[in-house]
Amino acid sequence: MLLIEAGFMLPAAAIAAAGGDMRSLFAFLVTAGICAALGISGALLRTDHSVFYAKEGYVTVSLAWIILSLAGALPFFIGGSIPDYVDAFFECVSGFTTTGASILSDVEAMPKSMLYWRSFTHWLGGMGVLVLILALMPMMKSGSGGSTLHILRAESPGPNVGKIVPKMRRTAQILYGIYIVLTVLMTVILKITGMDLFTAVCYTFGTAGTGGFGTVASSCADFSAVQQWVITVFMILFGVNFSIYYLLLIKDVRSVVRDEETIVYFVVIILSAAVITINTASLFDSVSEAVRAAFFQVGSIITTTGYATADFNLWPTFSKTVLVLLMFVGACAGSTGGGIKMSRIMILVKSVSREIKKMIHPQAVRPVRVSGKVVPDETVRGVNVYICAYFAIFAVSMLIISLDGFDFTTTFTAVAATINNIGPGLGEVGPYGSFAGMSHISKLILSADMLVGRLEIYPILLLFSPSMWRRSR
Amino acid sequence: MLLIEAGFMLPAAAIAAAGGDMRSLFAFLVTAGICAALGISGALLRTDHSVFYAKEGYVTVSLAWIILSLAGALPFFIGGSIPDYVDAFFECVSGFTTTGASILSDVEAMPKSMLYWRSFTHWLGGMGVLVLILALMPMMKSGSGGSTLHILRAESPGPNVGKIVPKMRRTAQILYGIYIVLTVLMTVILKITGMDLFTAVCYTFGTAGTGGFGTVASSCADFSAVQQWVITVFMILFGVNFSIYYLLLIKDVRSVVRDEETIVYFVVIILSAAVITINTASLFDSVSEAVRAAFFQVGSIITTTGYATADFNLWPTFSKTVLVLLMFVGACAGSTGGGIKMSRIMILVKSVSREIKKMIHPQAVRPVRVSGKVVPDETVRGVNVYICAYFAIFAVSMLIISLDGFDFTTTFTAVAATINNIGPGLGEVGPYGSFAGMSHISKLILSADMLVGRLEIYPILLLFSPSMWRRSR
Repeated sequence: MLLIEAGFMLPAAAIAAAGGDMRSLFAFLVTAGICAALGISGALLRTDHSVFYAKEGYVTVSLAWIILSLAGALPFFIGGSIPDYVDAFFECVSGFTTTGASILSDVEAMPKSMLYWRSFTHWLGGMGVLVLILALMPMMKSGSGGSTLHILRAESPGPNVGKIVPKMRRTAQILYGIYIVLTVLMTVILKITGMDLFTAVCYTFGTAGTGGFGTVASSCADFSAVQQWVITVFMILFGVNFSIYYLLLIKDVRSVVRDEETIVYFVVIILSAAVITINTASLFDSVSEAVRAAFFQVGSIITTTGYATADFNLWPTFSKTVLVLLMFVGACAGSTGGGIKMSRIMILVKSVSREIKKMIHPQAVRPVRVSGKVVPDETVRGVNVYICAYFAIFAVSMLIISLDGFDFTTTFTAVAATINNIGPGLGEVGPYGSFAGMSHISKLILSADMLVGRLEIYPILLLFSPSMWRRSR
Repeated sequence: MLLIEAGFMLPAAAIAAAGGDMRSLFAFLVTAGICAALGISGALLRTDHSVFYAKEGYVTVSLAWIILSLAGALPFFIGGSIPDYVDAFFECVSGFTTTGASILSDVEAMPKSMLYWRSFTHWLGGMGVLVLILALMPMMKSGSGGSTLHILRAESPGPNVGKIVPKMRRTAQILYGIYIVLTVLMTVILKITGMDLFTAVCYTFGTAGTGGFGTVASSCADFSAVQQWVITVFMILFGVNFSIYYLLLIKDVRSVVRDEETIVYFVVIILSAAVITINTASLFDSVSEAVRAAFFQVGSIITTTGYATADFNLWPTFSKTVLVLLMFVGACAGSTGGGIKMSRIMILVKSVSREIKKMIHPQAVRPVRVSGKVVPDETVRGVNVYICAYFAIFAVSMLIISLDGFDFTTTFTAVAATINNIGPGLGEVGPYGSFAGMSHISKLILSADMLVGRLEIYPILLLFSPSMWRRSR
C-alpha cells in the first residue's frame, strides 16, 4: 500500500522537477523513499496469517487510512508548504477522505506540485486505495473471497455494498474502470471548454472523488458558465451508485429505471435547486445565473464535493438550511460521495413509517422494501443504530470543538462539514473561509470525524473498542 | 375533559374577581361556560363504543391535547391579553406541553389571573390531564384496563412506561398523589423563604410541570440565592422518574440505588454543572455564584424547565454547547420533563456498543441491559426508530422556520427548545428573548413540535398517517 502511494508521488515529483521547484521535488522524493522503504520492509515481514476475518478487515482499513494520511502529509511538511505537521495531517486526511476542508488561507501560494498531490489524494481516496489494491493484485489466497469482501465493505460507502460480479477482484476492477473512464472523460471535456490541462486535471480529481480542493482561491467562481455546468453535471454523476453504470454497461436499463435510490436522488436535487433558485433569485442578475448557482451548490453539497461558485454563507437562512440538511443526506450508496447516504435516509423514513403502521395494526408483518426488494431486518436495525452512533459522535465532537470559542453556527457546521466529508460549512468555515483558526485538538478531532465519515463510523469506532484488542492477542 | 378544564378555570376567575379585573373575569367565565357546554353535550352524545384499542388511545390523547389547547387559549384571547389567537394558541400549547416558550415581550403587563392560568397549564400538562381523569373517574368499563394503559402510555414520557401497581386507576392516583405532595411542599418552602404566595404558587406550577413560565421578566434572576437553590433542587427532583418516589415510599431502597437511569441522571447533572462552572467562572464575582448559576441552568435545561438566572446566551460557546446537548438529552422517563429522555439515550449508547461488539464476535448474543434487566429487542428497535423520527421532524421543522430568515443559531435552537419542551433557546429566542417575531406559520409549526415533544412523537404522527383513518371508518 505504501509502495503504491510512493509510486503515485512520482507524477507530483515530475511536476516539481518540470517547474524547477527543487524543495518540493526533494520533499516528494524523500517521502516516496520513506514509503518505499517501509513498504518493502513490511512486505518482507509479512506473516503467514493471511486469512482475514471481519474485524481484521475493518481494522486493516482503519489503520491503512491513518498510515496513508500520516505519510501523505509528509510532502507538505518537508516541502515547507504547510510548516505545521498537524495542519499537514489535517489537509491530507481532508484529501484522502474527499472532504476538501482546508487550513490554507492562500491556496494560490502553494507550489503546483503540491496542489497536484493535494487534488490527487481526493481521486485516490474517492474510490478507496485498498479497493485499488484488490483490483491490481492477484488474489491474496484463492478462495479467501469472503475475507476481502470485508475490506471492500469497510471502504465503500453505503449500507448494503455487495459484489457487482461474484469475483471480488473483478468487482474492484469494474469499479475502477468506470471511475477512470469518467475521470478521463471529464478532463477532456474541461480541456475542450478552454481550461488549461493542469487546472482541468486537478478539478477533475476533486470532482471525481467528490472532494473539493481547488487550485485557485475563488474555487469555481471564475470559471465560465459552461465549465461550471460541466462540473455540476459530473459532480452529480459521481454521486450516483457506480453499480448503476455497470447496469447501464450490460444494458440492464430496467433495473436502472426501477432503482429507487437513484430516482429519489435526482428528485431531491431538482427540488432543492428549484426552491433555492426561487429563494435566492433576487441576489443574481439573471434567472439563468440563479439556476446555475443553485444547481451547482446543490450538486456540490449533496455529493459532498464542496466546490463553490458563490459564497452561500451570504444566502438567506432558508437556502442555508436546505444546504445544511443536504449535507447530512449525502449522495447515493456505492458512489464516491459522503454523508449519511440517500439509501440510509430512505430505509430510515420507511422504518419510521413501518413503526407507525405497526401501532395501528399490531399484527401485520410489514417488511421494509427498497426498489421492491425486502430489506433484511438486520440491515434496517443496522441503519438505525448507524444514525444514532452518527449523532452521538456528532455531539461529542461539537462539545470539544466548542472549546475553541467560535460561534455556534461555525462549531455546528464545522463538524457537519467534516463528518459528512463536504469541506466548507457556514460562518468562519464558510466556502471562502478556512479551518486555519482552529486549535490543534480541534483539527485532530475533525480529522478523526473525516475518517469516521469516510469509513462509515464502525471501522474507526472498532479501533477504540476495548473488546477489539482483547481477543486480538 | 372539557368539564375539568372549565372547573380549573374557576380559581383563575376568582383571582380576576379579587383583583377587580372585570375583563379577565368575563373571559374566564365565558370560556368555562363554553367548555362546560361542549363537555356536557359531548357526554350526552357519547356512544356505546367504549372499548379502546391502541390506535384509539393514541388518537384520543392527541385530539384531547389539541382541543384543550384551543379552549385554554380562549381566556388570553377574549380577555385581550394576547390579541392574536395564533399567539394565544402558541402560548397555551407551550403551557400545556410544559415548554415555557413565550410570545410575550412584557410578561409583567399581564393581569394576575392570566399569569395564574398560564402557570397552571404547566402543572396540568406536566402529569397529563388524561392521567388525571383516570385517577379521578371510576373505570370506564371494568375489565378494559388494557385500553386505558394505552392512554397512560401515550401521555406519559419515556420508552417503557408500565403500571406501578397492577390497577391503572391506582397507578394514576399514586402518580398524582406524589405530584401534589411535592407541589405543596415546594410552595410552602418558597413561602418560608419570603416569597409572596402568588409568586410562590406560580413558580411552583412552572417547576413541577418543568415548564418555565414565570411572572416577572427577569425569570428567576431577582430571587435570593436560597430561593434559587430551592428551585434548582425541585427542578431536578421533578426530573426524576416518579416511580422512584413510589419505591422510596414503599421503602424499596435497593431498587432505587440500583436504578441506572437515576444514577446517570445525577452524574450528568453534576459533571455538566462542574464544567460549566469552570468555563464561566470568570463571568461571576464569586465561586459560589458561579456554582449556583451553573447548577440552576443545568437543572433548568436538563429537566427542560427553562427558567433562567443568567442570560446564558452570553456564555462561552463551550457552555452553550453543553446546554444545547442537554436540551436533547432531557430528564428521566416517567418524570414531568421533556427531551429524548435519559433512558432512551442509555439504550441508544448500549445498542451502538452492542453493534460494535457484534462486528467483533458475530456469533455472540448480547442483549441490551439497563439496571441489570434485559431490554426487549422490540424496545431497543423502537428507541432507535424513535430517535430517527425525532431528527426527521427536527429537520423538516427547521426548514420551515428558516423561511422566517432568522440566523442559523436562532432557527436551530428554536426548534430544539420547542421539540424538547424547554422554552428558551439561543440567539433571538434566548432566555430573555421571545418567539414574538416569528411568523404565524412558524408559530403553528413550533406548536406542533411542542405537542410532538410532549406526547413523544407517535400520537401526533399517527394523526397524519393515512392508514390511521382508512381503517377508522
